[in-house]
Amino acid sequence: MFMRIDRLQTELPVPDEPNPNAAAALQELLGGKYGETSTLSNYMFQSFNFRSKAKLRPFYSLVANITAEELGHVELVSNGVAMLNNGPGDQESEADISGAPFEDMQDIRLAASFFSNGGGAMPMNSNGNSWNMDFVTTTGNVIFDLLHNFHLECGARLHKLRVYETLSDPTGREVCGYLLVRGGVHAHAYALAIKKITGVEIEKMLPTPNITLDRIPESQKYLDEGSHRRLYRFSPDDYREMAGIWGNGEKALPTDPPGELEVVDGPPEGGKIPELEGTYPAFAPDYAPEEMFEIATKLYKKSR
Amino acid sequence: MFMRIDRLQTELPVPDEPNPNAAAALQELLGGKYGETSTLSNYMFQSFNFRSKAKLRPFYSLVANITAEELGHVELVSNGVAMLNNGPGDQESEADISGAPFEDMQDIRLAASFFSNGGGAMPMNSNGNSWNMDFVTTTGNVIFDLLHNFHLECGARLHKLRVYETLSDPTGREVCGYLLVRGGVHAHAYALAIKKITGVEIEKMLPTPNITLDRIPESQKYLDEGSHRRLYRFSPDDYREMAGIWGNGEKALPTDPPGELEVVDGPPEGGKIPELEGTYPAFAPDYAPEEMFEIATKLYKKSR
Amino acid sequence: MFMRIDRLQTELPVPDEPNPNAAAALQELLGGKYGETSTLSNYMFQSFNFRSKAKLRPFYSLVANITAEELGHVELVSNGVAMLNNGPGDQESEADISGAPFEDMQDIRLAASFFSNGGGAMPMNSNGNSWNMDFVTTTGNVIFDLLHNFHLECGARLHKLRVYETLSDPTGREVCGYLLVRGGVHAHAYALAIKKITGVEIEKMLPTPNITLDRIPESQKYLDEGSHRRLYRFSPDDYREMAGIWGNGEKALPTDPPGELEVVDGPPEGGKIPELEGTYPAFAPDYAPEEMFEIATKLYKKSR
Amino acid sequence: MFMRIDRLQTELPVPDEPNPNAAAALQELLGGKYGETSTLSNYMFQSFNFRSKAKLRPFYSLVANITAEELGHVELVSNGVAMLNNGPGDQESEADISGAPFEDMQDIRLAASFFSNGGGAMPMNSNGNSWNMDFVTTTGNVIFDLLHNFHLECGARLHKLRVYETLSDPTGREVCGYLLVRGGVHAHAYALAIKKITGVEIEKMLPTPNITLDRIPESQKYLDEGSHRRLYRFSPDDYREMAGIWGNGEKALPTDPPGELEVVDGPPEGGKIPELEGTYPAFAPDYAPEEMFEIATKLYKKSR
Amino acid sequence: MFMRIDRLQTELPVPDEPNPNAAAALQELLGGKYGETSTLSNYMFQSFNFRSKAKLRPFYSLVANITAEELGHVELVSNGVAMLNNGPGDQESEADISGAPFEDMQDIRLAASFFSNGGGAMPMNSNGNSWNMDFVTTTGNVIFDLLHNFHLECGARLHKLRVYETLSDPTGREVCGYLLVRGGVHAHAYALAIKKITGVEIEKMLPTPNITLDRIPESQKYLDEGSHRRLYRFSPDDYREMAGIWGNGEKALPTDPPGELEVVDGPPEGGKIPELEGTYPAFAPDYAPEEMFEIATKLYKKSR
Amino acid sequence: MFMRIDRLQTELPVPDEPNPNAAAALQELLGGKYGETSTLSNYMFQSFNFRSKAKLRPFYSLVANITAEELGHVELVSNGVAMLNNGPGDQESEADISGAPFEDMQDIRLAASFFSNGGGAMPMNSNGNSWNMDFVTTTGNVIFDLLHNFHLECGARLHKLRVYETLSDPTGREVCGYLLVRGGVHAHAYALAIKKITGVEIEKMLPTPNITLDRIPESQKYLDEGSHRRLYRFSPDDYREMAGIWGNGEKALPTDPPGELEVVDGPPEGGKIPELEGTYPAFAPDYAPEEMFEIATKLYKKSR
Repeated sequence: MFMRIDRLQTELPVPDEPNPNAAAALQELLGGKYGETSTLSNYMFQSFNFRSKAKLRPFYSLVANITAEELGHVELVSNGVAMLNNGPGDQESEADISGAPFEDMQDIRLAASFFSNGGGAMPMNSNGNSWNMDFVTTTGNVIFDLLHNFHLECGARLHKLRVYETLSDPTGREVCGYLLVRGGVHAHAYALAIKKITGVEIEKMLPTPNITLDRIPESQKYLDEGSHRRLYRFSPDDYREMAGIWGNGEKALPTDPPGELEVVDGPPEGGKIPELEGTYPAFAPDYAPEEMFEIATKLYKKSR
Repeated sequence: MFMRIDRLQTELPVPDEPNPNAAAALQELLGGKYGETSTLSNYMFQSFNFRSKAKLRPFYSLVANITAEELGHVELVSNGVAMLNNGPGDQESEADISGAPFEDMQDIRLAASFFSNGGGAMPMNSNGNSWNMDFVTTTGNVIFDLLHNFHLECGARLHKLRVYETLSDPTGREVCGYLLVRGGVHAHAYALAIKKITGVEIEKMLPTPNITLDRIPESQKYLDEGSHRRLYRFSPDDYREMAGIWGNGEKALPTDPPGELEVVDGPPEGGKIPELEGTYPAFAPDYAPEEMFEIATKLYKKSR
Repeated sequence: MFMRIDRLQTELPVPDEPNPNAAAALQELLGGKYGETSTLSNYMFQSFNFRSKAKLRPFYSLVANITAEELGHVELVSNGVAMLNNGPGDQESEADISGAPFEDMQDIRLAASFFSNGGGAMPMNSNGNSWNMDFVTTTGNVIFDLLHNFHLECGARLHKLRVYETLSDPTGREVCGYLLVRGGVHAHAYALAIKKITGVEIEKMLPTPNITLDRIPESQKYLDEGSHRRLYRFSPDDYREMAGIWGNGEKALPTDPPGELEVVDGPPEGGKIPELEGTYPAFAPDYAPEEMFEIATKLYKKSR
Repeated sequence: MFMRIDRLQTELPVPDEPNPNAAAALQELLGGKYGETSTLSNYMFQSFNFRSKAKLRPFYSLVANITAEELGHVELVSNGVAMLNNGPGDQESEADISGAPFEDMQDIRLAASFFSNGGGAMPMNSNGNSWNMDFVTTTGNVIFDLLHNFHLECGARLHKLRVYETLSDPTGREVCGYLLVRGGVHAHAYALAIKKITGVEIEKMLPTPNITLDRIPESQKYLDEGSHRRLYRFSPDDYREMAGIWGNGEKALPTDPPGELEVVDGPPEGGKIPELEGTYPAFAPDYAPEEMFEIATKLYKKSR
Repeated sequence: MFMRIDRLQTELPVPDEPNPNAAAALQELLGGKYGETSTLSNYMFQSFNFRSKAKLRPFYSLVANITAEELGHVELVSNGVAMLNNGPGDQESEADISGAPFEDMQDIRLAASFFSNGGGAMPMNSNGNSWNMDFVTTTGNVIFDLLHNFHLECGARLHKLRVYETLSDPTGREVCGYLLVRGGVHAHAYALAIKKITGVEIEKMLPTPNITLDRIPESQKYLDEGSHRRLYRFSPDDYREMAGIWGNGEKALPTDPPGELEVVDGPPEGGKIPELEGTYPAFAPDYAPEEMFEIATKLYKKSR
Repeated sequence: MFMRIDRLQTELPVPDEPNPNAAAALQELLGGKYGETSTLSNYMFQSFNFRSKAKLRPFYSLVANITAEELGHVELVSNGVAMLNNGPGDQESEADISGAPFEDMQDIRLAASFFSNGGGAMPMNSNGNSWNMDFVTTTGNVIFDLLHNFHLECGARLHKLRVYETLSDPTGREVCGYLLVRGGVHAHAYALAIKKITGVEIEKMLPTPNITLDRIPESQKYLDEGSHRRLYRFSPDDYREMAGIWGNGEKALPTDPPGELEVVDGPPEGGKIPELEGTYPAFAPDYAPEEMFEIATKLYKKSR
């Protein structure tokens, strides 16, 4: 089972203006082969299909717990996409429908994101191709699945870096800066899991690509607080056994700020869920929502 | 953010024997157009993309909270698929690799489920077609999205009933019996949300298809405990505002056992995560896992 | 069986200049999830697969007859796409092939529309993704299929409105203005069908999105002539039974000009099929077609 | 614009028993690369996108008119699929939902056809893959498009023959026997069109594959009535100009019964639309439809 | 079996500057329905699946040998794509990762080509849609497969011409100029094969589209050297039997420079494989590759 | 450029009888995510897109050369599929088309393989899903691409083993037995390449899955001849530089027969291309091919 908390894993700054092509760039991290929907779905189905869970508890716990964090990554990128499409939210609430108020939406890269989603995120990549099951590997062979996951996180890192290099807007850059640190934790964790079983010191390949995070200003505050050494336990009571892999005296990678690896009980404090202003001329949430707002206020009061 | 609890939403009985074609039938409920991956993804992206969350809090909370429950539905069906492929787990742990030990896997409906997934679940339908973004509707228009969701839950109900009608095995039947009750709650909830805004008593269309659950023996214990009247709040502290929609003196549907609708704080007790025995001749988790088990035991002890 | 008439359902104005990105926008209405290929295919397959046609004749007739109108909608949008790509048709008939005469086609949103289709329409959405069967729901359950269709028409309306809001060109706007009126008829008709069976006054949700058509200048002449109250019977002799649903004293929606609903025998007068000038440098219909024209003239005379 | 007539292009015999795998075989002719949805969509979009329609009227008319016939072919195959899934229609109207009444549906080749479509047809091939735009060629170059169409009809013939060779049931065989004759007409017509423009006697390649229809018993009555020499004009008043291509003294192919080619005004008489009995345990049209039938009867009376 | 030679089939000029949208245009020739991956895969699978190879040796040899040439065409277009994305290669080898050095990549048509492939080619068309098996026809019927191939080469010619008409850059134009000549050979060869079996002089349809290559400056040197009359035998010892089809006194097409057709033993001399400079800020081949270069140099010396 | 030799990489035994479901199982190795079309296409596009080829020559050579071997693997599996569908080839050459001679083809797993391909191979997996570009990773980052390739070969090994475990027929088993040895070479080679750059002894993870090939009888003759230690140089003159990686005193894996790694100039001797008997009732190569055979004989004589 899963629970939900109405917080993002980190706070995202509001963009200065709408930038649909930057939003389209972020989509690569949401629905691309090496995007967050892929990391989520690989670990989620691997955890569902895991064989000999009891006997291999530390490995099962690691995969199952990271699944929960990945849900928050999907949420984070999705909010970034929606924010970049939306902009700072100072749009007029009324518009002349017949005056082609959205004529510029014809020329954005992924125009269907406006037509169909009103600027919302979708599980597709930056070229508008859908995420699909071809991006999921779940063989049941623990060593192979872990090797796959290690490669997947390195690929995810490469894509995050390249997307980052195209973004000047702070919203998208923050998404990348945060995910680069957290993805680094996952790559490291899978490397340690492989090392425990096979003895191969595969963590010495990290970071791949070999760019250190001190070059990414947006990553610094996360490194400063030690996020790269922390595996959050996203569960009230379960998955403690992963501490056998992440912890146990293992150290941070030499290219990151030094320190011991630690399992942290519970999620990070995170940031507030962004408020996306309605775009009334696009009927989102509705064209003339005042009555809806009034109804909602009444229902809200009743719910207290 | 999302948290994970190492429990299924309900307990699933162990199947009497492996039944890959029954597992393939259940895949329709996992990755089909009206399957659980679809309900999950529609609500998840709608909640990410929701406009005017503050002003429409009860509606946002409803969609956001049901998302969390749907994650558990995906988990439930996936476990059902894996259990049906696996059977009762009394396979021999050794096999002559060269003796075509899995010759019968050539003739099952979705043979790639063995080759690629070792019997695990995948986000695909019963014909082996991938789930994809064409199954997601997130327009940002609240009324339309709610209407879509109402139709989606009715479609999900129809598919669950038809899959149920093909299953004699208790594992798959339990999955259906449980989900029929919970899906009924979601359909009812979306109907009430529509009624609150538009005044249309669309809940009077329920149940669609118009078969009452008293005909489904596996649903009885859930009806008896009042599950059809309960909306679980899958969150430590958030989403209380949905009580303005589900509650407020609203009653159970006339075709279900009577009573008042209520929001229940926290998830149901649920059942244990099934243990899937390793299938060693298929190298899942590995061919000769004794050493892995030993390593895992040591890591487990260290994690304490 | 189907018959064809060499007329469009309404007359489309010739565009002032080629506008490939406006054509790409219209593609959303042709091949998107909520586009005309979807409405057509849903109703077409539902009519083929309809159970108990004899006993449920008014409902079967409604779905079967609207199918025929949808064919004309697919035709209308397709012609709009081709016209917008083509422009007013004053291109030179000769060009230096080696002088990169179409260099600007490199930068249009859906460049393959030039390379592959010479500016013609294709069953794809505005991002270039193919229409496919995932957009078709045909369960055989009449109530559910009608509910699906009602939701589909509301979604189609939302997409038409958003596409309309991006278009300044009169060709595309006329397509939208016409289809908004006719799609409104279909939504209303499915709502009445649902009401007849279930008693739920679901038509009170219309229009969704709740923007009235008096805001769309291009829709006015159709409203003035009462198109919103007319269900055309696109058949020489069949499908009269749908008058039991559309008619019978039912009235126009309160947000539309008032009047009684009526079944009109036969199609609307419509407009002429647009003449698309050849683009000889793109070898469409051919590079040096004079001989072809001469042959065609001879064949034409023989056919008299 | 298109009109609809509530008749099939030929009468189909009722199957002796349900045969879902035979229905799945027929799906290849409905949604495969060389199936009827492909022939329909190629000609339909080519007719929409046709350049210089006025100057090339006989060629435009040919493509536009055959489009209308192809709609009826899609209808014919779809009805065949639904009939084969349905069987003779003597199912009990009541069933114990909880007794796994459709257990055998788990093992049919395309199980989703039951779960999702209740035995209805879908635009997919015999392996369950969706029809999509990759099957459409519409370049605007008339000679190339005609060459493509000629190849397409030969491919369609090959597939019909192979599907026919797997069918023992009379329903599916009749579908093939009829379509082989009519597809032969289309291949011949496109060959003549190519010959008129290029002078190449490409019709001498016919039939490809080179099996004559006298070997197909189900085709005999159509050959006897001269169907292979007739191009039906599926239009009240239009498309007469195609007589410049089909006619003009052109003769039947030497491998078919002799005679002159002729354009016939109007559609063939055809056969009645099959009545598909409801499958109540599968909620198609509904579980307890008596009330629906009563409502429909009242509406029917009102429509008179 | 296949062998590889580290040469391109012709020399490509280095582009003056990066032009990602021109690269995207070339992708149509790589992964489109009528692109080189399609011609390759059709002939490759037809050769694998060929029936009665011994008895039909000249036809088998023709298809099998052209397969090998097509591999080089895929290679040629791919190199063209990568060169156009890369430009002349005078990029700085160092960049401030955090300064959005690739901000302009947000706005190119196929941005995922940068994010995912670092400017490399992929088997997709100009709209970013994947190549897939729907583009392969391999029925085993020799006459039909040859007819398909003839149509395929005509379609490939049309697409090459249209792509060429959008390109001002010399790299892409050279790709087109060369492939137009070689594709013409393949179309001619398949036409002759059809003629040998059926007697139909289908080669008289060539060229389709009917634009002669004397209009394409980049094709002249290939015509001058007689490339249009040469079928290269891409094999040390095999496939000589195709000389029964291409040769035997057959002449060049009347629209091409005159001469006899001939089979040439061995591949053309070709040109050098382009050197793609590293794009270090995009971590291709790596961020700080000096150490890699040093290792490679040592390994190179050991390999001598 | 590529050359072709009319030999398979190894000799395949003729199957005792047709076995379409075994052929369908082999399809997983042809078109699945971890199949030979994937290994081929990954290395092929990586070699096309390779950055700094001159400076990284040993690594480029390795990837470019293995590409050529993979073409032969695709050929080997494809021939295996076609042979298994075809059987021993003692079918009657004449059949009554109208007697449903292929009725049993209705019930095979991938019926479209008969309808569309006449038993030939296609680039799809065992569930009939198309191979597509989502299976290709070519980032330009050499370390990451090598890591991906290492994981890909391990995945390929797992799939080969599982497919092998379902096959009792000698044709399919020989395909697996051979490919397991050769795939092992590729995994080892990529591991060594990674080790040379990063120092990580990743080859110690081999074999993954950890089943040694001494358990596979069909692999023994290849191990006996030392195939596991040989990297064939599939080129007349190029790619010698890979000897810096494979060779240099490196040894066979400890789980394989001992010895030094060596680069072998030229391809293996291989086996003859299988002769697939015509299936005349399925019109492959044609229905009455005698005349074709006669024509081919004449052309063959002329080609001498």
